[in-house]
Amino acid sequence: MSEPRSIIAGTESDTADVVAATTAAAEAFTAYRATTPTQRADFLESVAAEIEADREAIAEAAVAESHLPEGRIAGEVGRTTGQLRLFAGVVRRGDHLGVRIDPPLPDRAPLPRADIRQRQVPLGPVAVFGASNFPLAFSTAGGDTASALAAGCPVVVKGHPAHPRTGFLVAQAVGRAVEKAGLHPGTFSFLLGEGYDLGQDLVTDPRIKAVGFTGSRGGGLALVAAAAARPEPIPVYAEMSSINPVVVLPGALGGDVAALATAYVGSLTLGSGQFCTNPGLLFLPRGEAGEAFLAAAADAVRQAAGAPMLTPGIAAAYASGTEALRGAEGVRVLAEGSAAGSEAPAPQLVEADALAGPVVDEVFGASGVVVRYDDLDDLLPHLERLEGQLTATVHATDADTEAARALLPVLELKVGRILFNGWPTGVEVGHAMVHGGPFPATSDSRSTSVGSLAIERFQRPVAYQDVPAGVLPEAVRDDNPWSLRRRVDGELE
Amino acid sequence: MSEPRSIIAGTESDTADVVAATTAAAEAFTAYRATTPTQRADFLESVAAEIEADREAIAEAAVAESHLPEGRIAGEVGRTTGQLRLFAGVVRRGDHLGVRIDPPLPDRAPLPRADIRQRQVPLGPVAVFGASNFPLAFSTAGGDTASALAAGCPVVVKGHPAHPRTGFLVAQAVGRAVEKAGLHPGTFSFLLGEGYDLGQDLVTDPRIKAVGFTGSRGGGLALVAAAAARPEPIPVYAEMSSINPVVVLPGALGGDVAALATAYVGSLTLGSGQFCTNPGLLFLPRGEAGEAFLAAAADAVRQAAGAPMLTPGIAAAYASGTEALRGAEGVRVLAEGSAAGSEAPAPQLVEADALAGPVVDEVFGASGVVVRYDDLDDLLPHLERLEGQLTATVHATDADTEAARALLPVLELKVGRILFNGWPTGVEVGHAMVHGGPFPATSDSRSTSVGSLAIERFQRPVAYQDVPAGVLPEAVRDDNPWSLRRRVDGELE
Repeated sequence: MSEPRSIIAGTESDTADVVAATTAAAEAFTAYRATTPTQRADFLESVAAEIEADREAIAEAAVAESHLPEGRIAGEVGRTTGQLRLFAGVVRRGDHLGVRIDPPLPDRAPLPRADIRQRQVPLGPVAVFGASNFPLAFSTAGGDTASALAAGCPVVVKGHPAHPRTGFLVAQAVGRAVEKAGLHPGTFSFLLGEGYDLGQDLVTDPRIKAVGFTGSRGGGLALVAAAAARPEPIPVYAEMSSINPVVVLPGALGGDVAALATAYVGSLTLGSGQFCTNPGLLFLPRGEAGEAFLAAAADAVRQAAGAPMLTPGIAAAYASGTEALRGAEGVRVLAEGSAAGSEAPAPQLVEADALAGPVVDEVFGASGVVVRYDDLDDLLPHLERLEGQLTATVHATDADTEAARALLPVLELKVGRILFNGWPTGVEVGHAMVHGGPFPATSDSRSTSVGSLAIERFQRPVAYQDVPAGVLPEAVRDDNPWSLRRRVDGELE
Repeated sequence: MSEPRSIIAGTESDTADVVAATTAAAEAFTAYRATTPTQRADFLESVAAEIEADREAIAEAAVAESHLPEGRIAGEVGRTTGQLRLFAGVVRRGDHLGVRIDPPLPDRAPLPRADIRQRQVPLGPVAVFGASNFPLAFSTAGGDTASALAAGCPVVVKGHPAHPRTGFLVAQAVGRAVEKAGLHPGTFSFLLGEGYDLGQDLVTDPRIKAVGFTGSRGGGLALVAAAAARPEPIPVYAEMSSINPVVVLPGALGGDVAALATAYVGSLTLGSGQFCTNPGLLFLPRGEAGEAFLAAAADAVRQAAGAPMLTPGIAAAYASGTEALRGAEGVRVLAEGSAAGSEAPAPQLVEADALAGPVVDEVFGASGVVVRYDDLDDLLPHLERLEGQLTATVHATDADTEAARALLPVLELKVGRILFNGWPTGVEVGHAMVHGGPFPATSDSRSTSVGSLAIERFQRPVAYQDVPAGVLPEAVRDDNPWSLRRRVDGELE
């Protein structure tokens, strides 16, 4: 048995480290979940400040490890600290505690009603798997970690092997905040491991009570299966694969078609297309205007140069994915950009006759598929056949309102976010955002991994019936010491 | 391929019926989820009225099929209609739609913020498996059905074979309400089947998007596995097994020990012990007062007569469960009541030295286990070793406050409801109730199957980004036609 100890790993971790970190997390849970909203919010803000204090070294490591441009990484640092502060605000407000009070009715006939109070409690230690494509905002101190810590759950991160040093530096920043707040060191640990085993050890550890993951469908499903096979199954929030359909309605081709096509290719090739929300599939009306759009898009793709992808493995998967796509029946290559070696492969645009086989598989990278349609009756069955997606985008003008109204209920059943006249890349971090969607976009469509609603993934309700005032937790006490918004007899105060 | 048709089955259903009912449900979903809060609330209230209109026939069938006393069944009719009306109120209020609006910030630097709105949408057709022990309140038009219909999901019920006629009559009442409201008949169907196959067909049907179940651990886990193995996995809310620990603290033995013991045995033997919340395990302080409690409890059990159980299968499972318990190491029989034939077996009370093997398995029926403890240090490890439970009960006086405070955080991690100085049987239907808990009490600790929070099981969030006003759903429109409480920039209006 390993001694419980928090770990901020700079090198490869092993099974003993997993046990040590989860044991420390379980120990830390008792005190951490008992922190007041103010203490927890202060801690989250301190994590943000510690990251900012080391932002130069962190950004330098992230640029070197991810091949992403400096501006993008600078933005991601801001997004990461902004996310932590967003959750600090959520925790201070306290609405996530979901307090409900049904006062006693001692004189009710035939039976009196007891005093019943409800609040949300944190699930327990959470395992977070960092993403390859967002070395900061979806990694060590990213959205999963921020929302789990906000909920009152200690976190054990498995850093992504594509950016170990970035992860280590961010983890050290979190560690400093833990220490300054006087929290148990097991509140946060960071492990590193190349292989599959470390992640399996972590998810099957009995002390871990929930999992956050952003990555491939194969990786996510392996964790889901491991979590379901535990003696005590636990929830896994895996954000996995999505081809993010875009529907161009006829009216949208009435304006500057070339500008629209250029914007599309801009979103398609942004960051070498390495976004969960990359617009991989576009539905285009048949006809002259559609031809003009396609010609302009093909031109833009031809002018696009490949940039280095995150890892050689991702570049190799892009190569095999695009090859399978080009070889599929009814698929014609429309345009190819330029490559800069095998790790910076060429963007591509293809046209497909039907949604089948490789056409609907996610190719992680700058590969777009265009499917033509005649009219709404032709388009809707395509959309109804799609698997679950993170996003759906509609390009429309007032002339398309009727068609857009017909599309909306169909898209609502398929995706977590519907956007009009924009592009799906770029996910705003706010209170109304949903970064989620039906399977296989995620393993749990009832949640989002971005935005303040993400905190609800790591909580569950507990009811307190006739619990004496002197024993009740602060959140549900009559004197309401945390000034929480409460639902009394079903009505919000 | 079966034609889509709603089914209110009075006799055994087959696979074709499953396909017909789920196809009809999928067809009905489009219109049903588009109903306004008022239309949906009116419909739920109409279901309650239709059940009341046929209450005599329904109650007569339920008494005949369940062997439960008339008073209990009359109460259950009231509970069922009350539950439907509770959800009607929830739907009218509209807070379950969880509307969030982050207004656009066109001048924000470096990038403007889009207009983002969020609401909850229903998951789709829901399969509900009626429970054996509540032929009304947890069955055909029980909590799962009421909350799914409230969320906007059509429902296909698999009626419990222990009370087919009760189910049929209730289903007919729902069917009349569907017709009177002018809803698509696929909004509600009712199937009957003895075997395992019909349920598997239903859960693996691609049109079903979530499952509600109340029953045994084996039955629940089979549905969870079937749902997870689907090409599109779906959530299963299975409320399964619980032994509902009761902790008697020393102070509670300072009063009328005999009355306390009698009340305990009353809860243990209520309805032949056939409650999910039956107090199957009691922790008692060693010493004189504990002895007195135990003697009184044993006396009360000896005076208790077995009543007919719900089904011969349940009586047989009780017989084998109690036999295994009595044969386990360190288990001594304290008292046995009287049987009235094999289908009305005797209540029993045993003492166990340790929490192992059959001692911690649920015996569905009036079988209680007592475990003695010396002090808090002796008690807490017992509680920490328990699996997840629906409830935990503490008996305490002011003298026990310190111990109760120490118990609370331990119990919170194990159960969905903590109650003081009462008994866990009798689950209030309200806004603050939690009838849920960590595995294996349920398959999803983040939910409750009783109370208004249950509606959240059948919803998921969707975000609308820059969707034109003329296309936006009513719930998130600026003019707020349904007068919903909205969260704007994170703050509740």
